[in-house]
Amino acid sequence: MSESQEKVLSILGVGLIGGSLAKAAKSAGLCQKVVGYGRCLKSLQRAVDLGVIDQIACDVKTAFESADFVVLATPVGAIEPLLKQAVGHFKSNVVITDVGSTKGSVVEAVRRALGEVPGNFVPGHPIAGTENSGVEYADAKLFDGRRVILTPLEHTDPDAVSRVRRMWEGVGSIVSEMAVNHHDEVLAATSHMPHMLAYLMVDTLSKMDARHEIFKYAASGFRDFTRIASSDPVMWRDICLANSDALLSALEEYSSEIMQLRNAIEAKDDEYLMALFSRSKAVRDQFC
Amino acid sequence: MSESQEKVLSILGVGLIGGSLAKAAKSAGLCQKVVGYGRCLKSLQRAVDLGVIDQIACDVKTAFESADFVVLATPVGAIEPLLKQAVGHFKSNVVITDVGSTKGSVVEAVRRALGEVPGNFVPGHPIAGTENSGVEYADAKLFDGRRVILTPLEHTDPDAVSRVRRMWEGVGSIVSEMAVNHHDEVLAATSHMPHMLAYLMVDTLSKMDARHEIFKYAASGFRDFTRIASSDPVMWRDICLANSDALLSALEEYSSEIMQLRNAIEAKDDEYLMALFSRSKAVRDQFC
Repeated sequence: MSESQEKVLSILGVGLIGGSLAKAAKSAGLCQKVVGYGRCLKSLQRAVDLGVIDQIACDVKTAFESADFVVLATPVGAIEPLLKQAVGHFKSNVVITDVGSTKGSVVEAVRRALGEVPGNFVPGHPIAGTENSGVEYADAKLFDGRRVILTPLEHTDPDAVSRVRRMWEGVGSIVSEMAVNHHDEVLAATSHMPHMLAYLMVDTLSKMDARHEIFKYAASGFRDFTRIASSDPVMWRDICLANSDALLSALEEYSSEIMQLRNAIEAKDDEYLMALFSRSKAVRDQFC
Repeated sequence: MSESQEKVLSILGVGLIGGSLAKAAKSAGLCQKVVGYGRCLKSLQRAVDLGVIDQIACDVKTAFESADFVVLATPVGAIEPLLKQAVGHFKSNVVITDVGSTKGSVVEAVRRALGEVPGNFVPGHPIAGTENSGVEYADAKLFDGRRVILTPLEHTDPDAVSRVRRMWEGVGSIVSEMAVNHHDEVLAATSHMPHMLAYLMVDTLSKMDARHEIFKYAASGFRDFTRIASSDPVMWRDICLANSDALLSALEEYSSEIMQLRNAIEAKDDEYLMALFSRSKAVRDQFC
């Protein structure tokens, strides 16, 4: 066992993200054994069959007791009840992290569950994923070259941060650190709002009279635009509720842009339209 | 020369769409010669160098005089002035079609230019394209397996429709026919509105304080969602103006959906959110 290797990695929530991390960590030799816990025994059994995890923990207590490194990869709403069941079963050297898309709400959930956010809890968020969910899609390369944001608090143990950083860097990610609130604002804009707009797009079209033709003639631009509307509804419900302030404020600004565009189209204001489209194209071409 | 071959194919506007059709038609043996006309001589010269067209027409008159089959592949706004210059130079057997994303405005432009929509003019729209523009991106496979909508009028010559259909089917497209207004409503929903929303998304984010980080941490979902915001601003300005009624009505419905979502997030209405996301995911998974 090398010094940087974790002995037992426990993954709570063995879906796309948890399963991919399990596979990646094993194939990079970052841990000796992966233990998995989840609500659905059948899907855990599939994770064993697929070689994603080595062992099923039949309860939260067992998932924690032997673990040196715990990853909470469930929807954000499940973190509080899980940690409540884990109280009293933490190994002394354990490091705990999560993969939630909202960090303020995770920090609150940990605080509610444990009375405080312990120094060995490192909030984290891998900016990776696809519209697919479930362990069947687990992919050891999912985090390769992707960004991971850690949002340690003031009193978070630097050694715990290092171990979490080492895990993510070991599976190929680019790790950076950011304050909790700042993370939530940035993600509301870049991820949460686009998901809302894509879900709304599909819903709006499916209510139209010509909906069958609408989907038949949808071009590839439309398919790309709405790909994220195939994402897991439970996860996105939780994210909406968890990051509502930042999301509402982003939607507010967006709505006001729609209103201005509508006025410009109505007024046949070709200069406004040309300026808007040119500006957006320039930004998109520069950044993406 | 087989019976179904056109002798001279003239492409007005040798960009992504016009150039791709030229390449595809030539490689499928659907024409003997391709003549190209456009505003920019340098880009026409490039089209010759790339083997996309065989010959440059130095004015509109020349582009029409020898042509058996004319494709207007310019932005929609250019159709009226071009046809005005073509009056008196139509070959007796010529068939004219276009590739514009809005059909009502094209029919109007033709009527304004020629006094009526002649029986040999077949409005058409290939549902294909990418966010790239310019002849450099011309691709003989662009239309392969893609849908083309023709919107002939009541008095359009059935032989002209057949020849246009044969051209598109010859390059691999699936051709269907539809009324002009219906086309414009369907396209407003599936193409024009998504483009507007993507442009607005990039613009909204680029006005935020954290814009540099926002684009740095943008995930692949965001990149897909905003890909179409790299599309040609002139083309989209013209489409907005040309299809404003259908587009405004689609944006109206979309805005009202955003409003309902905002209320649901504010009220922490988890049932509403869950229902919306589940419904959209089901529709997206079914249709795309």
